[in-house]
Amino acid sequence: MQIAEPLLVAIEELSKLPGIGKKTAQRLALHILKLDDYKAKNLFKSLEELKSKIRFCSRCFNLSVEELCDICKSPKRDTSTICVVEEASDVIAIEKTNEYNGLYHVLGGVLSPLAGVNPDSLKIKELLKRFETEDIKEVILALNPNTEGEATSLYLAKLIKPLNIKVTRIARGLPMGGDLEFADEATIGRAMINRMSI
Amino acid sequence: MQIAEPLLVAIEELSKLPGIGKKTAQRLALHILKLDDYKAKNLFKSLEELKSKIRFCSRCFNLSVEELCDICKSPKRDTSTICVVEEASDVIAIEKTNEYNGLYHVLGGVLSPLAGVNPDSLKIKELLKRFETEDIKEVILALNPNTEGEATSLYLAKLIKPLNIKVTRIARGLPMGGDLEFADEATIGRAMINRMSI
Repeated sequence: MQIAEPLLVAIEELSKLPGIGKKTAQRLALHILKLDDYKAKNLFKSLEELKSKIRFCSRCFNLSVEELCDICKSPKRDTSTICVVEEASDVIAIEKTNEYNGLYHVLGGVLSPLAGVNPDSLKIKELLKRFETEDIKEVILALNPNTEGEATSLYLAKLIKPLNIKVTRIARGLPMGGDLEFADEATIGRAMINRMSI
Repeated sequence: MQIAEPLLVAIEELSKLPGIGKKTAQRLALHILKLDDYKAKNLFKSLEELKSKIRFCSRCFNLSVEELCDICKSPKRDTSTICVVEEASDVIAIEKTNEYNGLYHVLGGVLSPLAGVNPDSLKIKELLKRFETEDIKEVILALNPNTEGEATSLYLAKLIKPLNIKVTRIARGLPMGGDLEFADEATIGRAMINRMSI
């Protein structure tokens, strides 16, 4: 097969991205090849600036352009609540709901001894330090509802509760628009246990 | 929603790519953000070189790094046969089969009067010129089996046949590994008409 070398290299690099196989990578590469120079430059510039301009907020480890992220800097946020999440993408997901107005703390993962992730690999020390300098009344644990997330939630709750700070966890139950028939047993079971009066 | 500006821009740019929606674009952007500098640089460099180093072969309009593409330059190819395709990606697809050893000619599309694609928009003039300078014995039309592809094939056949050059078209029939039960009528019908003795 005789494919021009730069095309082969670009396909190879693109197919390293998550969810992009060889075929998709080839389609993307050929598409970029056909873009006019202006559009291609915009794409390349946006990717380079993504890498060069974004760093982590020194307080909550969310993505940020400056020392502190937009959320930490905002005077409109409720500074007495911290929502603890695994990744910066979770901050985006929660912000989209418009249901939360407090601060965040991005752990950078969850405890997973088998994968070598122990408390020191996560931003747990940094979270505990925030309780000394900030006046926090509630910590909302919004980790993913799987084994590692649950274990990490319990670990954090044990550390935080003695500090006289309220610790809550986002609700588990049936997803909105979901169908009881197609929900798994663990979800329905949890929804039954956590039932609320209306 | 408070997403860092460079991330928003990168998501916006990535979601312009074919088959990449907002969610995938976000996942890709966050992945690129997490890449170490070396890997990110490799990715960016490969995309820029894709754009800056690749041009079109002056003879067959396949993708090429030099004036002539690797296929046109190769001394091992059968220079008496030209396979006419719509796009450079079709060259890649045919090369992968290892069943063809001749030259190519990339039209850059198919005739589509409604979309404003007339013979002058395609590399048809350039194809006809090749018959004057090269000793071509057969032209294989390998355009996509849809209305525009068929119409373009007929148009080209009419132009080329008077030049005493054999014109063939790649076979239509059931795809290998396909199932008669699930094939559409047009495909089965064509497969019946084009039946071959074994």
